[in-house]
Amino acid sequence: MPLNLQTHTEHFTNPLYLESGRILEPYDIAYETYGELNDDKSNVVVVCHALTGSHHCAGVYEDETKAGWWDGFIGPGKAIDTDKYFVICSNVIGSCFGSTGPMSMQHHHHDHYRYKFPVVTIKDMVKAQRILFDRLNIHRVHAIVGGSMGGMQALQFAIHYPNFSDKIISMASTHATQPWAIAFNKVAQESILKDPEFKQGYYDPEVIKEQGLSGMAVGRMAGHISFLSHESMASKFGREYKRTDGLYELFGKFQVESYLEYNGYNFTKWFDPLAYLYITKAINIFDLSRGFDSLQEALKKITAKLHLISFRDDLLFKNTEMKEIADTLNEIGNVNYNYIDIDSDYGHDAFLVELDKFENYVKDALDE
Amino acid sequence: MPLNLQTHTEHFTNPLYLESGRILEPYDIAYETYGELNDDKSNVVVVCHALTGSHHCAGVYEDETKAGWWDGFIGPGKAIDTDKYFVICSNVIGSCFGSTGPMSMQHHHHDHYRYKFPVVTIKDMVKAQRILFDRLNIHRVHAIVGGSMGGMQALQFAIHYPNFSDKIISMASTHATQPWAIAFNKVAQESILKDPEFKQGYYDPEVIKEQGLSGMAVGRMAGHISFLSHESMASKFGREYKRTDGLYELFGKFQVESYLEYNGYNFTKWFDPLAYLYITKAINIFDLSRGFDSLQEALKKITAKLHLISFRDDLLFKNTEMKEIADTLNEIGNVNYNYIDIDSDYGHDAFLVELDKFENYVKDALDE
Repeated sequence: MPLNLQTHTEHFTNPLYLESGRILEPYDIAYETYGELNDDKSNVVVVCHALTGSHHCAGVYEDETKAGWWDGFIGPGKAIDTDKYFVICSNVIGSCFGSTGPMSMQHHHHDHYRYKFPVVTIKDMVKAQRILFDRLNIHRVHAIVGGSMGGMQALQFAIHYPNFSDKIISMASTHATQPWAIAFNKVAQESILKDPEFKQGYYDPEVIKEQGLSGMAVGRMAGHISFLSHESMASKFGREYKRTDGLYELFGKFQVESYLEYNGYNFTKWFDPLAYLYITKAINIFDLSRGFDSLQEALKKITAKLHLISFRDDLLFKNTEMKEIADTLNEIGNVNYNYIDIDSDYGHDAFLVELDKFENYVKDALDE
Repeated sequence: MPLNLQTHTEHFTNPLYLESGRILEPYDIAYETYGELNDDKSNVVVVCHALTGSHHCAGVYEDETKAGWWDGFIGPGKAIDTDKYFVICSNVIGSCFGSTGPMSMQHHHHDHYRYKFPVVTIKDMVKAQRILFDRLNIHRVHAIVGGSMGGMQALQFAIHYPNFSDKIISMASTHATQPWAIAFNKVAQESILKDPEFKQGYYDPEVIKEQGLSGMAVGRMAGHISFLSHESMASKFGREYKRTDGLYELFGKFQVESYLEYNGYNFTKWFDPLAYLYITKAINIFDLSRGFDSLQEALKKITAKLHLISFRDDLLFKNTEMKEIADTLNEIGNVNYNYIDIDSDYGHDAFLVELDKFENYVKDALDE
């Protein structure tokens, strides 16, 4: 069957009560669906995206050449098989691809939120999705799948809406963001904030898209380091030098430098700096145990079958962080879970690029 | 015996022929000595500093409270015992603490070198030191010791001046800088270059010292990540939050963020951005095998007793990089070497802070 890609936006006028005590109203949620919802609505798979991802996780838009960010993983006959499952992926609140975020227009104002946007948490992102699914008359789903920040959302769903999903698959994630990851986000945030073109949030988004924003480019370069590993960089770039540059030229470049520069500057054309500040903030303050006496107390809430997948050389969210969840579940005893550590030297990005290492596992987990 | 700290600068008028084919003339080298040179000049230990280090590696200046960067390691009765050894540490060319670098005044000009300064290499730094020692009538030394970029210099000495030192001790270093380390340097370089206050090298050094340079601060923050490890950050900071900040404030800070901010901005008060560009360039293009058919051919030149020390969780120069040197030496067969990997979870900075883990080893290596 074809992928049946559909893009929608839902508008909500009821207030969204945030974890901070603040309120977001009104708000929009952009989402995509693939496949067909079956009659008893028992085939819904929710996909959650990462920091800079969007609801466009599969297929190709008519006016674009690049497919959605998990296209190799979602589609007819693929690991998340759209011939069987009705897949929904929504853009998180705080982002910049159609859901309400810091560059959305304030209600009854003629300006964007900018710094007036409230800090949102992973729990808030999940809550908003839950409200979206209610609107779509979907009150229970087959599975929730996500990697990195998407994996945080999957875990948060498992704890706060324990009867909502039969299965939870969280990969390349953590139970609470550790200082190593916070430090990388800090470099990016500081770099954005100190860029004079950022104008303390009063930049013109069109100008940024046109001209780029070097502060965000630098921050993204740091991000790319955290997504890779020593081994993946060594095998991808080695010490290859740009053929046109002299070794003793101050600005001569290694291939790895060109890669970071290209991806860093290109990023500023398609992602919003304020959204980057807000989403990295949400990641930094992510802690599953918040509101509970301990991680164990939080994890006790889980009733879904939980699959935890880590990657051996993930340097952003170390496999030991996922193993800590598994060990805690083991202590609890009555949660149905399975933990696997994938032998990969690709680093954090493995969940996006080394699909062949876990697609069969996910396929089986969904189908069993 | 007292430390007998002495600070000097030597001026050289003969040209320094650089690896690039360019020439530096005239030039200065600032250096410090500790202890007493014995009559047959057989007790000289050369210490080589890292990226942002200086010749001031031990003791305390009269007008300062902070001791030299390896003070716990060098002094009377310490691992490098100044009661026995006459220690010399010089500031590398390209740096900013008294030796000629990009912010030195050009000869017969009324301006600083800035971008007109030639790219220098680790080999050039070593060559300049060799010329300094000739000036001091020291033609052979007992040992050369260094960590990180200092360890690169020690290795370069071993290969290019094989009869100059009896012993070489290189720690937390590599045989050729890998893309992971180059990537971190790239973030710092790009961040400096794109800071409008840097003015493409035409900044006023006094103003920078006074006001700081946010681009370099951000770059240094990235550097600090590379010097630490997941474990050292977790035990140092955990998820501690600044008590005065609200969790849901966009600019609320974790302790790790405060640490990076403080160290990043403080750094710009005492280090020169152009020197940072030039020295990171030297580190990036460091490759012991350059000019040889292979690393093995390069290492065959070594006649000194070589000690290689790596740290298990060094993420900047991985222990596997030092082990590669050891493995290659093992293949060669007739080089006298010893390799130890220190069980440390402190990361790259271990060579500066976990002295107790290797000081006995170094003491024995020097005394044997």
